[in-house]
Amino acid sequence: MAVNLPLPSNLLPVPGVELGYAEAGIRKANRKDVLVMRLAAGASVAGVFTLNRFCAAPVQLCKAHLGTAGNAIRALVVNTGNANAGTGEPGLVAARETCAALAALLNCKPEQILPFSTGVILEPLPVDRLKAGLPAAIANLKADNWAAAAEAIMTTDTQPKAASRQVQIGGKTITLTGISKGAGMIKPNMATMLGYVATDAGLSPELAQRLVKEAADVSFNCITIDGDTSTNDSFMLIASGASGLQIDSAQSPEYQALAREVIALSQQLAQMIVRDGEGATKFITITVEGGKSAEECRKIAYSIGHSPLVKTAFFASDPNLGRILAAIGYAGVDDLDVGKLDLYLDEVLVARAGGRNPEYREEDGQRVMKQSEITIRVKLGRGAAAATVWTCDFSHEYVSINADYRS
Amino acid sequence: MAVNLPLPSNLLPVPGVELGYAEAGIRKANRKDVLVMRLAAGASVAGVFTLNRFCAAPVQLCKAHLGTAGNAIRALVVNTGNANAGTGEPGLVAARETCAALAALLNCKPEQILPFSTGVILEPLPVDRLKAGLPAAIANLKADNWAAAAEAIMTTDTQPKAASRQVQIGGKTITLTGISKGAGMIKPNMATMLGYVATDAGLSPELAQRLVKEAADVSFNCITIDGDTSTNDSFMLIASGASGLQIDSAQSPEYQALAREVIALSQQLAQMIVRDGEGATKFITITVEGGKSAEECRKIAYSIGHSPLVKTAFFASDPNLGRILAAIGYAGVDDLDVGKLDLYLDEVLVARAGGRNPEYREEDGQRVMKQSEITIRVKLGRGAAAATVWTCDFSHEYVSINADYRS
Repeated sequence: MAVNLPLPSNLLPVPGVELGYAEAGIRKANRKDVLVMRLAAGASVAGVFTLNRFCAAPVQLCKAHLGTAGNAIRALVVNTGNANAGTGEPGLVAARETCAALAALLNCKPEQILPFSTGVILEPLPVDRLKAGLPAAIANLKADNWAAAAEAIMTTDTQPKAASRQVQIGGKTITLTGISKGAGMIKPNMATMLGYVATDAGLSPELAQRLVKEAADVSFNCITIDGDTSTNDSFMLIASGASGLQIDSAQSPEYQALAREVIALSQQLAQMIVRDGEGATKFITITVEGGKSAEECRKIAYSIGHSPLVKTAFFASDPNLGRILAAIGYAGVDDLDVGKLDLYLDEVLVARAGGRNPEYREEDGQRVMKQSEITIRVKLGRGAAAATVWTCDFSHEYVSINADYRS
Repeated sequence: MAVNLPLPSNLLPVPGVELGYAEAGIRKANRKDVLVMRLAAGASVAGVFTLNRFCAAPVQLCKAHLGTAGNAIRALVVNTGNANAGTGEPGLVAARETCAALAALLNCKPEQILPFSTGVILEPLPVDRLKAGLPAAIANLKADNWAAAAEAIMTTDTQPKAASRQVQIGGKTITLTGISKGAGMIKPNMATMLGYVATDAGLSPELAQRLVKEAADVSFNCITIDGDTSTNDSFMLIASGASGLQIDSAQSPEYQALAREVIALSQQLAQMIVRDGEGATKFITITVEGGKSAEECRKIAYSIGHSPLVKTAFFASDPNLGRILAAIGYAGVDDLDVGKLDLYLDEVLVARAGGRNPEYREEDGQRVMKQSEITIRVKLGRGAAAATVWTCDFSHEYVSINADYRS
């Protein structure tokens, strides 16, 4: 049911990064559920992680390993089928065991491994099956395995999500390829379920960290499917440096050029998650303009994007647009003067100065609602700040998927 | 599909309060959609109203009239089928016209009328049809019309909601009867869609205002169906004084006794709304204990109660309880130490010290999940504060109702 989500094509290998997968039977048999990404020496890795207080064991280890091993990370390992979250101390032990097992196979230290998990929460990680799958994943490590890698990290996703781009920077051809996963429990706060962007440009660890945060804030941190911030959200940027281009200053034109590309790719990957939102039939862009601060614009955009009433109206293509006004009204912007507010559906002015636009005709709203891609635009008329959030509608299929998941 | 919601029975007339209804065809023909409540002289009326910034025109007028007419309110008028919200200045004009028409019929001033509307937002109120219905409503004013009144305020409700009680206070027999409505767009903030409690005890206007707030905070302000705070939430307390009991001090035993009854009745009416939640199949009590403040306990309880993933798991009777941990983790309590947290489903200890309880068996969780009434209990282990929220599950039927409403 994904909304205008193309299948991955023309995925470009990123020199300095190899990918291998396995069918380890973590939760179900006969599906790719383990991914290993091996990095050439010298690669910088940086990430942003969920702010959920129940952050998963692997997320805790990732943060610790990035702190100690810095830019000496040699591999990332991802499993699906089990989130290793809400698992307490045994969960941490299992994540450490995973790192130790992969480190032994790759001849490095456990601290040089970053672990990631996604799947059911509150169930023990079947760490023996995961470890048993690692040799097979290593055996098929290849630079052009991105399509398989995108498949290997899927859970309730209906399609793999991946994209590539190539650009000239500083006289070098720079490649960027990324993958992402996620379809439910999506309201990233600092990052998303799982997103990985790799480039063969070189970045100092500080710049990599700066760029991954910058990109997350305008991509994965702007999407929502159901308002549920996951315990395992992680978004990682890998800069292998294999192109020979090394960037050490955020003021350099090379950094600016690379940042543009990383941001564009991140937005593409983040939007892919929304397009594949559980049960989604519509892709909805919510733009709130004219606010006093970006923060209040985001509040209002998320309030609209999380309202089950708004989302079911979009599913039904029913221009029951008063529900949008209600969601704006309870967003928590206490001094909002609704008398200055305009509401557009694409180019159709629905409400003007806080009331129904006298020229608004139901059939105009109806026409836009029937589209598969819709923009809700709110003009607050009280400042110059703006924010955009991407979301999807809410259908019977969402309930089916989440009432049946695990079964 | 209401969950253990009894039909109203044994509703007691409240001396000093008469009710009349009409079928005015506001939105649909042949259904009661206008209610008039006429009060004897000397009744005190107090209310709490939505904090939604898009508060409806009638809510704005109610606040103004309570401010100017104080305890000289003579009647309340309620229409369903149209919320008169998001209607700007014409909406206010329509609400004023309604009050003026009813005041002329009852021989009082427009300021002595309180108007209420509920239904679709952003559509003009058909004020002529409403006014045309008023004489019929006045013609059938009766003290024992509570059952019909409960029907007259329904929208997507599947059942009318009403209850009565009688108690001896200060040597007098005091009667309390209340009605409520609401099934979707329910996350009251100060009040709920519509709730009315009437008693023949007498209260000064100050005490009536104090008591309506006190009761709302532990009843209508503790329920959520979909997290959508309506534009029209109103909860009103009417104290006619017709029993001869007049209460003027909050410290008196009479006030304490009456407050207990008003609170109990309000909780009953509020819970009825959850039991009739759109598409509800389960009634869920969420209690969060051991917090530093009631505020943080409420935050966590609402975070669980609003999670579509938690609500669909309950619909499926699937003990996918990690979703509850995730919702706790993203509730926004930044210094929460999940290592001290216990989670119970009824009496079953699911998670202990932030991880899965080693003795927890899936079949125990499964058994509780299959019940129609379930308590989620979270112990935070960091203080003595607590809060309770009542909610329901999230089913296919919710999507159907809200994708079809208006059609």
